[in-house]
Amino acid sequence: MEKKRNVSLKELAAELGVSISTVSRALKNSPEIGEDMRKKAKALAKERNYRPNPFAMSLLKNTPRIIGIIVPDIVTHYYSSIISGINDMAHKNGYSTIITSSYEQFENEKKCLEDLINIRVEGIIACLSQETTDYSHFEALADLNIPLVFFDRVCLTDKFSSVITNNIESAQEATEHLLSTGSRRVAFIGGANHLDIVKKRKHGYLQALRERRIPIERELVFCEKIGYEAGYEGARRLLSLPNPPDAILAMNDNLAFGAMKAIKESGLSIPADISLIGYTDEAHSNYVDPPLTAVTHQTYKMGETACELLLEQLKGISKIEQRMIPCILSVRGSSIKKRSKYLK
Amino acid sequence: MEKKRNVSLKELAAELGVSISTVSRALKNSPEIGEDMRKKAKALAKERNYRPNPFAMSLLKNTPRIIGIIVPDIVTHYYSSIISGINDMAHKNGYSTIITSSYEQFENEKKCLEDLINIRVEGIIACLSQETTDYSHFEALADLNIPLVFFDRVCLTDKFSSVITNNIESAQEATEHLLSTGSRRVAFIGGANHLDIVKKRKHGYLQALRERRIPIERELVFCEKIGYEAGYEGARRLLSLPNPPDAILAMNDNLAFGAMKAIKESGLSIPADISLIGYTDEAHSNYVDPPLTAVTHQTYKMGETACELLLEQLKGISKIEQRMIPCILSVRGSSIKKRSKYLK
Repeated sequence: MEKKRNVSLKELAAELGVSISTVSRALKNSPEIGEDMRKKAKALAKERNYRPNPFAMSLLKNTPRIIGIIVPDIVTHYYSSIISGINDMAHKNGYSTIITSSYEQFENEKKCLEDLINIRVEGIIACLSQETTDYSHFEALADLNIPLVFFDRVCLTDKFSSVITNNIESAQEATEHLLSTGSRRVAFIGGANHLDIVKKRKHGYLQALRERRIPIERELVFCEKIGYEAGYEGARRLLSLPNPPDAILAMNDNLAFGAMKAIKESGLSIPADISLIGYTDEAHSNYVDPPLTAVTHQTYKMGETACELLLEQLKGISKIEQRMIPCILSVRGSSIKKRSKYLK
Repeated sequence: MEKKRNVSLKELAAELGVSISTVSRALKNSPEIGEDMRKKAKALAKERNYRPNPFAMSLLKNTPRIIGIIVPDIVTHYYSSIISGINDMAHKNGYSTIITSSYEQFENEKKCLEDLINIRVEGIIACLSQETTDYSHFEALADLNIPLVFFDRVCLTDKFSSVITNNIESAQEATEHLLSTGSRRVAFIGGANHLDIVKKRKHGYLQALRERRIPIERELVFCEKIGYEAGYEGARRLLSLPNPPDAILAMNDNLAFGAMKAIKESGLSIPADISLIGYTDEAHSNYVDPPLTAVTHQTYKMGETACELLLEQLKGISKIEQRMIPCILSVRGSSIKKRSKYLK
């Protein structure tokens, strides 16, 4: 199967003791390269039977216009969809995008930023890792005058533009929806309490109860960690209470799907016995049975907006701005009780 | 809210008429910068009350060691998980990764490749876009001597190492599983016939029927396109046949979940009346009811392996290799019939 490989530009360059870019330009008769070198390069290319690749010959000349992206994670529909929004807006404006992931770690995030600066991106769009509490690496961008826009998890909002969502209001609206469609005792399943996103969504949930003067019961709030197992465990514990809830708001997709499994296993019916709302994307909400009422982020629009703000910075508009893209409550089959054994 | 912004390195550089990198090195007393410029830079920095950011000062000196990745799409668990595998292996070996997406388009793919080369990545790992049939842009990498490894959708396998999976065998195994667990009439729902992946999986399905000497019925094969709606439509059509199937193999997650919806709507029970197998990831197979028997790609391992092969090239090992990472059939609730009205 072994074929005789063609001689490469790199091999020609090595033999001539010059860079690949020099050989490439010499072969293209570039006036930047001396007559001597042009002759030597062509002679060697001929001798070695060098066959130029048109794509290779066109390379190594343009400085690409690139926007760098830092996300905490790419294995979720949430970030992937935001990236699509950024990408489309960037392309329309003559930019490419490249993506790096911090995998939720501070040290990785610093490295991503360093790499993006070193490869000379023109601007950066970033979402903080869960671990990040020191922001000096981002402050450096103000110093170097490299435009930066944050989305979702943001910081230094006086220095950089940002795109956020309405965590408090969206959870409040979802809770109010449950209360106004036949549910009386609404439980909340969240993640670790130190996370900003958990605090805000729990705050919205509690706010909805307060506005209806419903007493807050500690045992109806289950906040341990984010994940399918935690959702399953949380729902099991809630359902085994002497006075169990008749609705659950789960603040994340995995929590919601885990809770759904526990509810089904217990023999209860959704939504008649227990209503369920999650924060999930459109596709997966429709895959399950019954289809899940869910709070949906306008992820694509968040990405577009972040890119728009960055493009303004790149055009020299120095106004620092924060834009809010609201979540949307999509009502499906899992939340509206027609009759329930809990309803009098 | 407006704060007085500190003077930036860029502003100092502009005022001195030199590059940011020169100012930065001058302020750090680099011997590469003349005594004069060092004095001038320091004087101006003092005058303007320049406060260095430690992170900014450390930048602009290292050439990062980066591996570039080109995927057809990032909004699927499949590619995200492969990227995780690449990333972890790269990090262990002192490399960063950056990701670009062709969004399944040939022109984008060429641009991604051009960008990665222009920012001087050391090597590239790529999966072809659906549109790509001309490979000369990739051939250019052999010419420039930039290492490249393909995964999943591969080409030029005599020039570049690659990682593939066993599409034919995995579909054959899944079909055989259905036939050996009580199903008699197995249907296949695939995507557009020109796609390599559709051809191979359909081939495996037909192979399983042939080995059991089961006559092939054209009406049991539904290949239109890949998507939730196509899966729904395909299953509806199959179930409305005079002699409907008692099992369906769907060659993609969206097809499988769409088919599941149609089966449930028709009032049939899974797996008693009709068994169902999809190609899906572990998480989503467990979200649905009943949990879906599925062919699972070892995505993380595919990524690790592709990166391993690239690292060998980067170390100067020029052997071209192809490694196969097999799919795994995970049997869950949707495929084993206990009793069926079709069973005599």
